[in-house]
Amino acid sequence: MSQLRFDGKVVVITGAGNGLGKEYALFFGKRGAKVVVNDLGGSMKGTGASSSAADKVVDEIKAAGGVAVANYDSVEFGEKVIDTAIKAFGKIDILINNAGILRDVSFEKMKDEDWDLIYRVHLKGTYSCTKAAWPYMREQKYGRIINTSSASGVYGVFGQTNYCAAKMGIHGLTLALAREGLKRNILVNSICPVAASRLTETVMSKELLANLKPEFVVPLVGVLSHDDSKETGAIYELGAGYISKLRWQRNQGYFFDTPFTPEDVRDKWEQVAGFGDNVCYPQTSSEIFEIFFNKEDFIKQQKEGKTTSAQTQQTTQAPSKRIFGLMKAFLDRGEGKDLIPKIQGVFNFEIITQKGGPVIKSWVIDLKNGQGAIKEGKEQADATFTMIDDDFEKVCLGKLQANEAFLKGQMKIKGNMKKATLFTPSLFPAPTPDNFAKYSQPKL
Amino acid sequence: MSQLRFDGKVVVITGAGNGLGKEYALFFGKRGAKVVVNDLGGSMKGTGASSSAADKVVDEIKAAGGVAVANYDSVEFGEKVIDTAIKAFGKIDILINNAGILRDVSFEKMKDEDWDLIYRVHLKGTYSCTKAAWPYMREQKYGRIINTSSASGVYGVFGQTNYCAAKMGIHGLTLALAREGLKRNILVNSICPVAASRLTETVMSKELLANLKPEFVVPLVGVLSHDDSKETGAIYELGAGYISKLRWQRNQGYFFDTPFTPEDVRDKWEQVAGFGDNVCYPQTSSEIFEIFFNKEDFIKQQKEGKTTSAQTQQTTQAPSKRIFGLMKAFLDRGEGKDLIPKIQGVFNFEIITQKGGPVIKSWVIDLKNGQGAIKEGKEQADATFTMIDDDFEKVCLGKLQANEAFLKGQMKIKGNMKKATLFTPSLFPAPTPDNFAKYSQPKL
Repeated sequence: MSQLRFDGKVVVITGAGNGLGKEYALFFGKRGAKVVVNDLGGSMKGTGASSSAADKVVDEIKAAGGVAVANYDSVEFGEKVIDTAIKAFGKIDILINNAGILRDVSFEKMKDEDWDLIYRVHLKGTYSCTKAAWPYMREQKYGRIINTSSASGVYGVFGQTNYCAAKMGIHGLTLALAREGLKRNILVNSICPVAASRLTETVMSKELLANLKPEFVVPLVGVLSHDDSKETGAIYELGAGYISKLRWQRNQGYFFDTPFTPEDVRDKWEQVAGFGDNVCYPQTSSEIFEIFFNKEDFIKQQKEGKTTSAQTQQTTQAPSKRIFGLMKAFLDRGEGKDLIPKIQGVFNFEIITQKGGPVIKSWVIDLKNGQGAIKEGKEQADATFTMIDDDFEKVCLGKLQANEAFLKGQMKIKGNMKKATLFTPSLFPAPTPDNFAKYSQPKL
Repeated sequence: MSQLRFDGKVVVITGAGNGLGKEYALFFGKRGAKVVVNDLGGSMKGTGASSSAADKVVDEIKAAGGVAVANYDSVEFGEKVIDTAIKAFGKIDILINNAGILRDVSFEKMKDEDWDLIYRVHLKGTYSCTKAAWPYMREQKYGRIINTSSASGVYGVFGQTNYCAAKMGIHGLTLALAREGLKRNILVNSICPVAASRLTETVMSKELLANLKPEFVVPLVGVLSHDDSKETGAIYELGAGYISKLRWQRNQGYFFDTPFTPEDVRDKWEQVAGFGDNVCYPQTSSEIFEIFFNKEDFIKQQKEGKTTSAQTQQTTQAPSKRIFGLMKAFLDRGEGKDLIPKIQGVFNFEIITQKGGPVIKSWVIDLKNGQGAIKEGKEQADATFTMIDDDFEKVCLGKLQANEAFLKGQMKIKGNMKKATLFTPSLFPAPTPDNFAKYSQPKL
């Protein structure tokens, strides 16, 4: 298999004078990238400054035949950090937000200064460096950002309220940035590394530390930073050679007939707070609205004791949803951009569950503007298709001919019929398991 | 069923002049609590200030026969907010961190001011009010804190990088505070409410808004704020009468033989990034160390294609872990405090999987100090028990007599034998499903 290279790429790594940051810097230097080694040279508690840590790493990269420059600014001044990349190398392709310090203290004894300092270096620093890099990445339609979150933030740790808040905040930033960057190939992910470093050496045994080499965190960072990666908005927990991924799971929950009382919630606590078999994995904040919209069905099934989860509902009630999701991923990645000049049309899709039934879902497929887009709702369109959910799936799978569906009344079309005939599901990847996997996983 | 009452409790609700905060305030006022209605009276974009919003809610509570006072300080000055409670009512029992504003703007166009303001009101404001309330809650060994996170932060939303970061940061704070508060009955939870409010009325249809009444968020807040609740460190997504809970799911992941390369990760990407059947639900940042420690077994089973997940390993390899977890919850809640004067002993437990095998896990049960404690590791102890994992479970379940286990060599004891005999599993709740449920769920 070919080596993952970074020739010609410009990488900025914050806090690269020691530990993980240093390993990243040496790695990218060896793999052909031009590296900005940022390090304030302060203590792990955030005091002091010196240029020696960054300089040593730059020297080491150069000695191995690589290209690197140092930067000694605090990550709170992201513009200065990124300017070093622009001045030395003319661009910024990859940003590894790694700089960090600790100020562990119980919440009771925490001083505002402990809180503020951790916030400024971790969350504000990540914001600041990313903000400075963002216009360049947008302009060049390319960017890879790795943000350093922490298992401390993900699970909570006694004595680290400041650190946990900042580290979870960083992942919140990752999630929003991932959405904003998607159309311009700016991919943003979070990692929660466990590694022997200045920050951890005081709390772990020597034996354990030997297995937690910082270099074992590098491979994932390399993959996520590479051209070929498609992953974005993810969070990984890793160390010692082990790499795992996290996601949110939502329980089935309980839909109360409104109005309802705290006593009602108490009496259904097991359903409200427990996790049974019927769970789902929401990916957007709007998915809960599908449950809101289907309140009556949800409550009915709840009463009948049926174990229909949000996820099951989505799958059984709307195969079209998954298919539109697939089409959306295809367009969002720019892979449908050649269709735009050919089709030049906007299409509404109204999904129903039976002939003459109400519309359960509306989608707009825009193949007229930009690289194309798919969203929920209705818009001014060239043509509007109304289809039964199952039939839509059959057409997309090639099990039902569009013509036949139209003639049998399983598909209705309004608007510009000529435009309408330009639209066929074959413009998009077929809704096969392979394609679902391909468009939800990075292509490597 | 009896009504959940709040008689004698002092509740501070921030941002209580409108929307959700107002509903909470009216609810607690009706249920017997003394309410501090905080509202700066600013716009939803964080500008301006006026005392009228808070005053109106106070008047409404009083008109209904309740007790309330107003506070008009910004939540950035939490001390002033909490001082109002102390001066008016002498204490603070329940804190609902609810105040919030929006400054939605694409990351590209975001100004530092947009970032800073959202941070200060949401995350720093939640910190500030909680910090001011914390010493009182610690002292009285009682507190209930509800922090307002958001599905925006949980999933990420375009145009809300500032808000998503702050809202996820708030949940990170919740998680750490939950750990710090546990021993003093200070319970901290996050909610992600969806409700019609000043913040949402501009982006939702009237029909939908009618189903998203703020009052539908109140019942869960009532339950989580009540004396009887045991829930802490949780996060709920709710609205329109629907209540659901979220948790982190971790995939099986992949353990690479070290050293390894980015190409290795690329070639195992499906295992690294995919979610199969073998998942787990870690609750602490240290749980990943169990995988680190079991590297060889993990890799062996991986090679054999066995589907042993981290979770399965935990369950099959160490029933003792769950039992010690149960004992720990019992002690942490102060329910074992009467044992301390009776036993006055510290006990090490070394768990093995077979006679003469290595210790896979060590626990310390301290029944000498404070209200008792259980933690991983070894300490200076009065006696050390060495037991096979399965036998330990059998003894705790009453299926194997401790005497018998000792005589047959299934249990070894070193140290002070007299102290050792004082320790029996019957001091703790039996490891029955009921007790596992009881000690991991709120008691209502």
